[in-house]
Amino acid sequence: MAWTIDLNCDMGESFGAWTMGNDAAVLPYVTSANIACGFHAGDPGTMRQTVKAALEHGVAIGAHPGLPDLVGFGRRTMDISPADVYDLVVVQVGALAAVAATQGGRLHHVKAHGALYNMAASRPDIANAIACAVRDIDPELVLFALANSAQVQAGLDAGLTVAQEVFADRSYQSNGLLTPRSQEGAMITDIDKATAQVLKMVKQASVTSLDGQTVSLTADTLCLHGDQPDAARFARHIRDVLEGEGVTVAPVSAARGDAGE
Amino acid sequence: MAWTIDLNCDMGESFGAWTMGNDAAVLPYVTSANIACGFHAGDPGTMRQTVKAALEHGVAIGAHPGLPDLVGFGRRTMDISPADVYDLVVVQVGALAAVAATQGGRLHHVKAHGALYNMAASRPDIANAIACAVRDIDPELVLFALANSAQVQAGLDAGLTVAQEVFADRSYQSNGLLTPRSQEGAMITDIDKATAQVLKMVKQASVTSLDGQTVSLTADTLCLHGDQPDAARFARHIRDVLEGEGVTVAPVSAARGDAGE
Amino acid sequence: MAWTIDLNCDMGESFGAWTMGNDAAVLPYVTSANIACGFHAGDPGTMRQTVKAALEHGVAIGAHPGLPDLVGFGRRTMDISPADVYDLVVVQVGALAAVAATQGGRLHHVKAHGALYNMAASRPDIANAIACAVRDIDPELVLFALANSAQVQAGLDAGLTVAQEVFADRSYQSNGLLTPRSQEGAMITDIDKATAQVLKMVKQASVTSLDGQTVSLTADTLCLHGDQPDAARFARHIRDVLEGEGVTVAPVSAARGDAGE
Amino acid sequence: MAWTIDLNCDMGESFGAWTMGNDAAVLPYVTSANIACGFHAGDPGTMRQTVKAALEHGVAIGAHPGLPDLVGFGRRTMDISPADVYDLVVVQVGALAAVAATQGGRLHHVKAHGALYNMAASRPDIANAIACAVRDIDPELVLFALANSAQVQAGLDAGLTVAQEVFADRSYQSNGLLTPRSQEGAMITDIDKATAQVLKMVKQASVTSLDGQTVSLTADTLCLHGDQPDAARFARHIRDVLEGEGVTVAPVSAARGDAGE
Repeated sequence: MAWTIDLNCDMGESFGAWTMGNDAAVLPYVTSANIACGFHAGDPGTMRQTVKAALEHGVAIGAHPGLPDLVGFGRRTMDISPADVYDLVVVQVGALAAVAATQGGRLHHVKAHGALYNMAASRPDIANAIACAVRDIDPELVLFALANSAQVQAGLDAGLTVAQEVFADRSYQSNGLLTPRSQEGAMITDIDKATAQVLKMVKQASVTSLDGQTVSLTADTLCLHGDQPDAARFARHIRDVLEGEGVTVAPVSAARGDAGE
Repeated sequence: MAWTIDLNCDMGESFGAWTMGNDAAVLPYVTSANIACGFHAGDPGTMRQTVKAALEHGVAIGAHPGLPDLVGFGRRTMDISPADVYDLVVVQVGALAAVAATQGGRLHHVKAHGALYNMAASRPDIANAIACAVRDIDPELVLFALANSAQVQAGLDAGLTVAQEVFADRSYQSNGLLTPRSQEGAMITDIDKATAQVLKMVKQASVTSLDGQTVSLTADTLCLHGDQPDAARFARHIRDVLEGEGVTVAPVSAARGDAGE
Repeated sequence: MAWTIDLNCDMGESFGAWTMGNDAAVLPYVTSANIACGFHAGDPGTMRQTVKAALEHGVAIGAHPGLPDLVGFGRRTMDISPADVYDLVVVQVGALAAVAATQGGRLHHVKAHGALYNMAASRPDIANAIACAVRDIDPELVLFALANSAQVQAGLDAGLTVAQEVFADRSYQSNGLLTPRSQEGAMITDIDKATAQVLKMVKQASVTSLDGQTVSLTADTLCLHGDQPDAARFARHIRDVLEGEGVTVAPVSAARGDAGE
Repeated sequence: MAWTIDLNCDMGESFGAWTMGNDAAVLPYVTSANIACGFHAGDPGTMRQTVKAALEHGVAIGAHPGLPDLVGFGRRTMDISPADVYDLVVVQVGALAAVAATQGGRLHHVKAHGALYNMAASRPDIANAIACAVRDIDPELVLFALANSAQVQAGLDAGLTVAQEVFADRSYQSNGLLTPRSQEGAMITDIDKATAQVLKMVKQASVTSLDGQTVSLTADTLCLHGDQPDAARFARHIRDVLEGEGVTVAPVSAARGDAGE
């Protein structure tokens, strides 16, 4: 059997004179970049520079639309209508698609950011708004969605290729969803445990939940964090381990068509 | 000889709870809509609604990118680098292109807004930045540029179809450019005089300058103002007169290729 | 017995080139102006002009702080921490206080706007954050709070003079709070009914709830809406009726000290 | 003779999730903090935290208003009217004054930021707008102004105490103004040379211009840069040298009244 997984990381989250993350250090190890589109981070110049750097590393370019909340970095849930979500996803994805085109690239995927991602994971109306926006722009785009969440179904309903996203440093509940951060045991800080979880998710399509159950889960893409001091080191580590175990590390293929199933 | 001219109008300049202009009243009479893209006006929802309304009227859809200055409505000149201008045009045009795609339309042209338009008229570096951004997104897009200005040349240099824009309510200098608003005689308030100027520009490819000279000028598209009380009335009047005089009123054809020459 | 009530209206909600409301028409009839402070509406120039106009009419000047959400006009609930609420109230109230000082006036009260107002009505932590911010800036400021809501208690706990706010065009529940807009019967569209409700609230300190009960309620200040076509007409009408019934229409006096009890 | 100088540094220039500068490292060595007020940097939470830290170090609190340009960090000149400058200074200074009050402090001075500072140095209309705004808020506030510039005179005309600001790392022209950065020799990178220049400015009230002339200049406050890697080290060095030479390092006293003459 051939195992494959995508390694994705949020990027381009600087803004004007402010720098965030260390994109240059992480880019050599990931296969997909989720690039901020100006609403929660990412001014136009940062968007272009990030797209350019991703293309130079052969990394797949994704749009990373967020809520209109610069001060809160798009992390604060807002009571925003599905229609408004549709509209803000369209303009942000469109903006990044144009940047990609001007740099000789092509947009590959869309991953919602922060609170918008979390809202889409649990609320079908928000998930549908995002999925429809992505499909209406370009049905070839891959939709990144939290594994086992409402957004997976919304993407499939919209006819999109869905990449189910998993986490190395987060534990799972028996329903296949992440343990909320507010609960004990939500974070996995031990690197060996995190690595083992990833290998199990990729090779066995399952995860051991916090209460000890084996839960099935599709791991199409692994989320790496770029804003932590050891981001590049962990990215390199997990990639080395995965490749050493015979796992192909590559962007999600839109052609698969069966992603998320 | 067959005369033809496009009638364009800025639209979609509402923002959130605030309304501006009367797009619905003007749309029946114009052939091109320049739609704000979020930086000086035009939130995502307004962008979608305006694109939709324009498509329903068969009006050509244009992006109307501006400086990042909501409070100043993009009317205040900023000391912004050509690289920054390139970037902000790309993201704004890309955003509107995506909106157009989701509504079943296709972006037709780009016209810079306010201070950005004025900067592009006189500064070749800014004009080139805009023209290159438009070309890099889609070389089929038509660039609207002030007749006889630096932006016309920049657009042609970039290989774009350029639509030279003229005004009914502004007088011209002997160099073929607009009389600055600060000078006496800059505005033409008499409707008959304004109408006569338009007819001469369209049929004779020239205008009588404020100091009485005949100056040649190409009138590809006429700018109508949508934010004035009698906007729709004047739009209807000028269209009636033009059509009565045998002038075809239609969007600029990108296929002409020789526009602006 | 001497009855008295304040008539307040949201004002200064224009932004840059966009106009909202008709402040000039309403100002002659109200006694308190709640002036937007830049986060949901109200650019610096609008703030100054609105303060100046209010002072010219002898209308008490209030700060009207809102959530940082221009596109949503501060009407969308955000998951914002009490600490962040404290901070954004401080800077908005401080900004308007400075504007008032430069125009020869003095800030009189604070009323939260939109979603922030609603959050403060039901969540004690948000209500406390606002009340503490107001007290820490100036304990003489009057806090406007939805009658019978959590914000009333928070203001009293902070040692502030609290003005309980009532509505003419909204029905009440038997718990003394407004009927949610989503429920039938929430709005009172009949002017005579609205007027009668106000008179009862002022003269009898009670209201008849939607289900027919008499509920006690303190009416320190009545909210008038400035953004509706007949805003000025209704303001004039309700003022005429109140004064005709022997009710003194005047700003809330901070010196009373017992407001809200 | 008693020499005295203030050491000031821009602070609070973080924004939301983005960090800038190293305020904590620099605070022990400076006597005045110029704190961003939200328009070019400095969200409400950052404003509060910075004020609090400055108060804990006994550092005088200043407002540092800038142009409304987050992406450009207030460094891009805008064609903004004096009336608009007045208004944006009022709201920014007012916001910071309120923050100071809530933290038990009091606003001490105002220093314009970036492009606004440069505009005020050369344009009397902009300088007057700033000076009048400061005076209208509180005539006790000290106005920081580039030594020998138009802003010094504007401040004095407004009846304010003016602190003339000098730079260690910039050379001067024979007219007493800074050598433009675009010219060779504008920057002084040698620490000993920079230190010697400061000592001469403080003790002899003069500076040697780039072309070798002795130019008189009043050094009320020295600008230290907080956003450079060795910011704290240089601040400590210059303070040690100054105190070793018998110079009192202290905030500008508003009571002097003759500052800037």
